[in-house]
Amino acid sequence: MKNSFGTSVIVTLFGESHGPAIGAVIDGLAPGIRIDTDYIAEKLELRKPHGRISTARHEADDYRIISGVYNGVSTGTPICIIIPNAEQHSSDYTESRGAARPGHADYTAYQKYHGFEDFRGGGHFSGRITAALVAAGAIAMSALEQKGIHIGTHIAKLGGISDTEFGTDNEDVEEKIEILSKKQFPVLDDDAASKLQGAIEAAASDGDSIGGVLETAVVGIPCGVGEPWFDTLEGVLAHALFSIPGIKGVEFGGGFDMLDARGSEYNDAFYMDGDGVRTRTNNNGGINGGISNGMPIIIKTAVKPTPSIYKAQETVDIIEGKDTVLEIKGRHDPAIIHRVRAVADAVTALAICDMLAQRYGTDWIAESK
Amino acid sequence: MKNSFGTSVIVTLFGESHGPAIGAVIDGLAPGIRIDTDYIAEKLELRKPHGRISTARHEADDYRIISGVYNGVSTGTPICIIIPNAEQHSSDYTESRGAARPGHADYTAYQKYHGFEDFRGGGHFSGRITAALVAAGAIAMSALEQKGIHIGTHIAKLGGISDTEFGTDNEDVEEKIEILSKKQFPVLDDDAASKLQGAIEAAASDGDSIGGVLETAVVGIPCGVGEPWFDTLEGVLAHALFSIPGIKGVEFGGGFDMLDARGSEYNDAFYMDGDGVRTRTNNNGGINGGISNGMPIIIKTAVKPTPSIYKAQETVDIIEGKDTVLEIKGRHDPAIIHRVRAVADAVTALAICDMLAQRYGTDWIAESK
Amino acid sequence: MKNSFGTSVIVTLFGESHGPAIGAVIDGLAPGIRIDTDYIAEKLELRKPHGRISTARHEADDYRIISGVYNGVSTGTPICIIIPNAEQHSSDYTESRGAARPGHADYTAYQKYHGFEDFRGGGHFSGRITAALVAAGAIAMSALEQKGIHIGTHIAKLGGISDTEFGTDNEDVEEKIEILSKKQFPVLDDDAASKLQGAIEAAASDGDSIGGVLETAVVGIPCGVGEPWFDTLEGVLAHALFSIPGIKGVEFGGGFDMLDARGSEYNDAFYMDGDGVRTRTNNNGGINGGISNGMPIIIKTAVKPTPSIYKAQETVDIIEGKDTVLEIKGRHDPAIIHRVRAVADAVTALAICDMLAQRYGTDWIAESK
Amino acid sequence: MKNSFGTSVIVTLFGESHGPAIGAVIDGLAPGIRIDTDYIAEKLELRKPHGRISTARHEADDYRIISGVYNGVSTGTPICIIIPNAEQHSSDYTESRGAARPGHADYTAYQKYHGFEDFRGGGHFSGRITAALVAAGAIAMSALEQKGIHIGTHIAKLGGISDTEFGTDNEDVEEKIEILSKKQFPVLDDDAASKLQGAIEAAASDGDSIGGVLETAVVGIPCGVGEPWFDTLEGVLAHALFSIPGIKGVEFGGGFDMLDARGSEYNDAFYMDGDGVRTRTNNNGGINGGISNGMPIIIKTAVKPTPSIYKAQETVDIIEGKDTVLEIKGRHDPAIIHRVRAVADAVTALAICDMLAQRYGTDWIAESK
Repeated sequence: MKNSFGTSVIVTLFGESHGPAIGAVIDGLAPGIRIDTDYIAEKLELRKPHGRISTARHEADDYRIISGVYNGVSTGTPICIIIPNAEQHSSDYTESRGAARPGHADYTAYQKYHGFEDFRGGGHFSGRITAALVAAGAIAMSALEQKGIHIGTHIAKLGGISDTEFGTDNEDVEEKIEILSKKQFPVLDDDAASKLQGAIEAAASDGDSIGGVLETAVVGIPCGVGEPWFDTLEGVLAHALFSIPGIKGVEFGGGFDMLDARGSEYNDAFYMDGDGVRTRTNNNGGINGGISNGMPIIIKTAVKPTPSIYKAQETVDIIEGKDTVLEIKGRHDPAIIHRVRAVADAVTALAICDMLAQRYGTDWIAESK
Repeated sequence: MKNSFGTSVIVTLFGESHGPAIGAVIDGLAPGIRIDTDYIAEKLELRKPHGRISTARHEADDYRIISGVYNGVSTGTPICIIIPNAEQHSSDYTESRGAARPGHADYTAYQKYHGFEDFRGGGHFSGRITAALVAAGAIAMSALEQKGIHIGTHIAKLGGISDTEFGTDNEDVEEKIEILSKKQFPVLDDDAASKLQGAIEAAASDGDSIGGVLETAVVGIPCGVGEPWFDTLEGVLAHALFSIPGIKGVEFGGGFDMLDARGSEYNDAFYMDGDGVRTRTNNNGGINGGISNGMPIIIKTAVKPTPSIYKAQETVDIIEGKDTVLEIKGRHDPAIIHRVRAVADAVTALAICDMLAQRYGTDWIAESK
Repeated sequence: MKNSFGTSVIVTLFGESHGPAIGAVIDGLAPGIRIDTDYIAEKLELRKPHGRISTARHEADDYRIISGVYNGVSTGTPICIIIPNAEQHSSDYTESRGAARPGHADYTAYQKYHGFEDFRGGGHFSGRITAALVAAGAIAMSALEQKGIHIGTHIAKLGGISDTEFGTDNEDVEEKIEILSKKQFPVLDDDAASKLQGAIEAAASDGDSIGGVLETAVVGIPCGVGEPWFDTLEGVLAHALFSIPGIKGVEFGGGFDMLDARGSEYNDAFYMDGDGVRTRTNNNGGINGGISNGMPIIIKTAVKPTPSIYKAQETVDIIEGKDTVLEIKGRHDPAIIHRVRAVADAVTALAICDMLAQRYGTDWIAESK
Repeated sequence: MKNSFGTSVIVTLFGESHGPAIGAVIDGLAPGIRIDTDYIAEKLELRKPHGRISTARHEADDYRIISGVYNGVSTGTPICIIIPNAEQHSSDYTESRGAARPGHADYTAYQKYHGFEDFRGGGHFSGRITAALVAAGAIAMSALEQKGIHIGTHIAKLGGISDTEFGTDNEDVEEKIEILSKKQFPVLDDDAASKLQGAIEAAASDGDSIGGVLETAVVGIPCGVGEPWFDTLEGVLAHALFSIPGIKGVEFGGGFDMLDARGSEYNDAFYMDGDGVRTRTNNNGGINGGISNGMPIIIKTAVKPTPSIYKAQETVDIIEGKDTVLEIKGRHDPAIIHRVRAVADAVTALAICDMLAQRYGTDWIAESK
């Protein structure tokens, strides 16, 4: 399926950084979903560079919905979102054609596309494409919220500094998601936030970059969503999340950290909470046997340090086939993790919408709760 | 796609632990692949319980290939593999119907299948199903080996003890894979092996269980395999790997561990190695922008502690809807990580075969190198 | 997807005519569907050769369900059906390896599978594989019937003789379907039936074969099922029906016959029938814009004359690459159209189940009406 | 997959007749295909209304490619084509909201989309969407031509008048395809052309409409393309072709017409033609067992009479739920079959590209012959 994701709700991405436009098509979304353009703009804003820790480069994310919405409501037919690219000066890029930027896709794109790729600004691999993903995801998120399903992401760890975690209580997680939705720098604890910003600035002042760990939570998903093999909830979510440039790890619940625990500690004991079933701990991250169990779905993703840095780097010239040294000009983000958060929310929302539509049918998401 | 995986080479799993048989269908494999039944049996052997650290329960994994192979060679049509289940005494299970085993899929299966699921022995969620996956994967692995593509997995970490890692050199990794293919307990360093066995035995003597981290390597994949968005090599491999019961995390290259590194350390510098391009480090795990770069593909997976333990556990009776305490009778593995290794190899092989067939066509895998 | 069909309810076929077994896996069927083994046997019986107009060759269609059913009810996990092949004397076939049977897949299979195909008895292309399809389809049909959706097929035309058509009234069509379900030779009008049998016998006595047209009807499908582009109800049904060996045409409603009509005659005028909407005629075959409109879905399929005939035929030897003459030994059906009817019902049922599960979710089919 | 088609080369359609734009995304096309914008414009021209037998309504089909093409060559990433809609006066449509046009999708769209559909001008069901399909198909056609694969369509039958058929000789068919590519009114025989135009004008002067049969041929496809079950060449092509609004039947080779033939007449005898294998007749339409056999692929499609006519028609008001009479204002095509020809070529090309990419890999189509 290549640049598409989903079985029942399908998103397709297109566009290059320096082409006329980027965009996304979402197919399979129910008719009757109110499309709140301010909500989408708000989510796009969260992805944009802001303040000292991001590049000053101006990105216009003025999106247009050119199909699938009528009178402000989804029609049920494919929704195409277009984000035009501002005029680009391609000449800026011609000089650097040959030198593969380490950590980027320049070399692998050249191998895959035999040199026909639009390499300017990363082309189809550019982080800019995620703007279209965020816009598409915003439509999915807003539909999910109408059904009481909430998604949020924060920086859990970076440069040795940790934020408060989401925890195991559905109501509490929902509240934290609400708080995060208003924050441009997605950190729950304000002290941690300053320290985290400081760590990013420190990397910046070294002409270097820094990565970290995001924690994403989903609350409100009914029990029983996911498949026992292959289309496990973990498998489908990880598949979607690994699309995000720079994500190199995905874990659920206890993940890699809890692996020294014994089974008696790791197993999440069930108990009755009124009529509902809950678990005392949530090391399984809300998923047993690939299927949602009613607890918060807790996902951690590893975001590698931004590969574009000011320092000179050893590399090869892929056209000439010889060693060279590269200094990347222009403005670079010392960290993108705070911006990736909006993308993590978006792909999670799209994947969850798809799983729900497969389980409950195409119209369920738009039916009154 | 539910219990199937793949676009061009597709595997479908079926069966329940206590039904007549389990099995797998592989569709889309090239005609002309020699099917080595000993090789398959050998891989199944690696998944079987052995020695003190595994259950004494006897599992017969006598498989039969009932289609798609003629004169010992794949025909190109679907290959169906059947592994009959030994006679089971279902009565053993009726008493425990209601109490959901913590960490298992009993509760979520009940929610998803409304009580119609064959719950005996975990039913369709049973680890036993992975025997079919290993058999299917063995066919894929053997085809890949003919093309110079090798896959191997070892225990990287468990109970605070670490094994030697694969490292970054293709030839070296291939050698280690070769060594591992002969080991029932998949650990490279023999000292580490004894300590790791000791840690498992310690958990066993406490009536408890233990998890750990597997490291899987793939060498020999051509550059340029994978898609920029969604069907990234990471996304597809993670999707497949999360199918394995007990896997709660998947990371590539540096993953979660390297996140305190700066970009200048994390970026893998390219250099010319003769006519080929290599990277000095391999923090990106052989994948840039979702596409293979010619370095070893390095994957780590987090295997949670086996949920079946001897200790009494708090849980709920899902039929009665009330709290209860469960003591799981029978024999349990204190660790499955050394057996999961065969499953990790298998799903990796199937996913890689699929990606290659999409890229180079259905027959490529059987063409002489 | 190759030998699989469906998005939400997926059927996969495997097996060769002279291998150990043939079979099918159905994945995605709801839990809680009663599996009536007599019903399946009955449908298999309709596909079997009977009487003078079919071959005397004995085919044992003793099927076994080896997964996905527990206590006589679907569990919601993949259902694997196996039909073992009787002991075959492969030696019968070695002599005829080279001569491609005209109208059969011998030559194209050789091109596709490079000679590795199991050519004996047609291998994976054998009409025998349809037995597995009929068994799988019977499970789907029986689930559909519980929801008031009925499917039936009869011989509409053969050798210049026509049967009564289904007509445009839902209740009337349902009655005709009920009548057909009891008939081994699927013809509504008894006079026509004798004439049609006569025409087949005439072809047989010439050592020749004969084809014809099947008419399939589906009643009871809710309005609003199907997609505007690509996954139109017509497109999905035709895709499935063209799998049946020997089908060379598929048309809906008026199809090719009504093409000399003007728009004013062809358009189906809507009218209110109580609270419901009906059309006066049904030239669109129950489908407008790719979507069901509540009228009977009417499909005609063209079944070509059975390619195996007694007459000597000019052909090529694909191994030697030279012209030759072939006389096909053994017993051949002078017509298979009356047996294909069971296959047409089966694939229609599977395709309809899939479309409904996509629209209304996986469990809908098993929910009480 | 809904509004998408394909496994390896995937096309997705979006847009509504009176929305801002319509368009298509093609994903999976090889890098390095020259994109000839004149060629695309030429194909779009063939779909446009011309002369007396088509509406005088002006449709601007000015398309823009906004991704996936760089320096006039495909990059291998998704190609998004946008065709903006001219300013529309929506008010023209509000009066007719309720009355379902017979033969159109108004009623079924209302059932499927619960009234949220953009109904203006047929919305997402409008024939206008096929312009995007023709543009996408033109890219596929032009790539196929580089590989020596040619596709063409003409009116085979209409109002009792027949055109010359393609016949069974590859070279001859290729020549006819070449001739047709230059004709706005796609008829091989010039006498037949005048009569066919006359028949359309006769329908027009009655305020009525007329349908007919298209014949499409594909030459140059290698032997061995297609799958034995489900993804048969017939099944995949029919699936794609039934997307075209107004297509109610698809047949291959002899189809419905040859059904009174005996097997001895219908079977296509093989013979050696130099080193190649040919068949004397082509009743199987170039396909045996679902797989291409090297003969021309011959497809006939039944195009129903255009449903929009000037005559008053009985129908229902779907909002009010009562009977009504509808007179459709504006300008209507008395026939669309000559324009549908460009759409038949386009979807055939897209489906063939997809089958070839699955078989030979993603890059094959762009490799020099």
